[in-house]
Amino acid sequence: MEIEPTFSASPNFQLPPGFRFHPSDEELIVHYLQRKVTSRPLPAHLITEIDLYKYNPWELPKMALFGEDEWYFFSPRERKYPNGERPNRAAASGYWKAAGSDKPILTSCGISKRIGVKKALVFYTGRAPTGIKTEWIMVEYRLLDSTTKPSRSKGSMRVSEIFNALLRLHICVSQKHGAN
Amino acid sequence: MEIEPTFSASPNFQLPPGFRFHPSDEELIVHYLQRKVTSRPLPAHLITEIDLYKYNPWELPKMALFGEDEWYFFSPRERKYPNGERPNRAAASGYWKAAGSDKPILTSCGISKRIGVKKALVFYTGRAPTGIKTEWIMVEYRLLDSTTKPSRSKGSMRVSEIFNALLRLHICVSQKHGAN
Repeated sequence: MEIEPTFSASPNFQLPPGFRFHPSDEELIVHYLQRKVTSRPLPAHLITEIDLYKYNPWELPKMALFGEDEWYFFSPRERKYPNGERPNRAAASGYWKAAGSDKPILTSCGISKRIGVKKALVFYTGRAPTGIKTEWIMVEYRLLDSTTKPSRSKGSMRVSEIFNALLRLHICVSQKHGAN
Repeated sequence: MEIEPTFSASPNFQLPPGFRFHPSDEELIVHYLQRKVTSRPLPAHLITEIDLYKYNPWELPKMALFGEDEWYFFSPRERKYPNGERPNRAAASGYWKAAGSDKPILTSCGISKRIGVKKALVFYTGRAPTGIKTEWIMVEYRLLDSTTKPSRSKGSMRVSEIFNALLRLHICVSQKHGAN
């Protein structure tokens, strides 16, 4: 049984001007993704669980629990072929394409330890390799392969194990927001 | 009479991991500095009032109400000479030196309107012009000159009018912080 977090992003959720969810990579891994995957309580109910690859990126912001120019999701990371390591990046009317290699995420305290990886992805509409590049970008956070490889078949996996990637979505075009 | 803000940074003040006070320049001007100077209630009691130039920068973080690698202060901005515009930047065992010119801060909504200026400053120990550059940096936020020029002598000015600059202090050396 998961303990309910005490802090929740509701429609009335409002902090004083200037406060934002601006987590470090390490915070995302340690406080959110590691806890999610290991079924430990999350510090806050902030991140929507969604099968992100079923949607176009422009459909996603309204499904996020909060965010003005960045949106966070937990999503499954499925494989393209059952026995391969290659992820399936097809998504609704297009596909996500890696914009770089996996970057290690290290602990900042004590002896530096590798705790996860991140990778930037860009959304293309259409079909690879002739898709059209869009302004939608996301960063995928994963735990190290050794901790994410499912030991059971999907049918017996817990929800927390299925949602094994954390994604930070944003759009390149500057999003202007008001102040009053 | 000032209305007390409802949100206050106390020693027990704790948000879930990943939340930070990361205000935009516009938010600092509109929600904090403009309100301070015009004696309107602040949205949160987050920013220490201090005569910043009486201290060395390394003495300041402990005087801030919160902050892990950035600290915010309201401070008077005094003139070097009574009839001049030049500010007095001498501070404790050194001085602050501008690292660039004033940069305008514009509104992001509707017709772009100039609402303030910001300037980066670097701390030097010793006496100008032979001081030794340090890693301490701050950004000074001011309202436009037309709204900050005191119309009364200092003796009759309100506290809110004296604290006419907002300063964001930080140190260049990366500040590592733990996660558990």
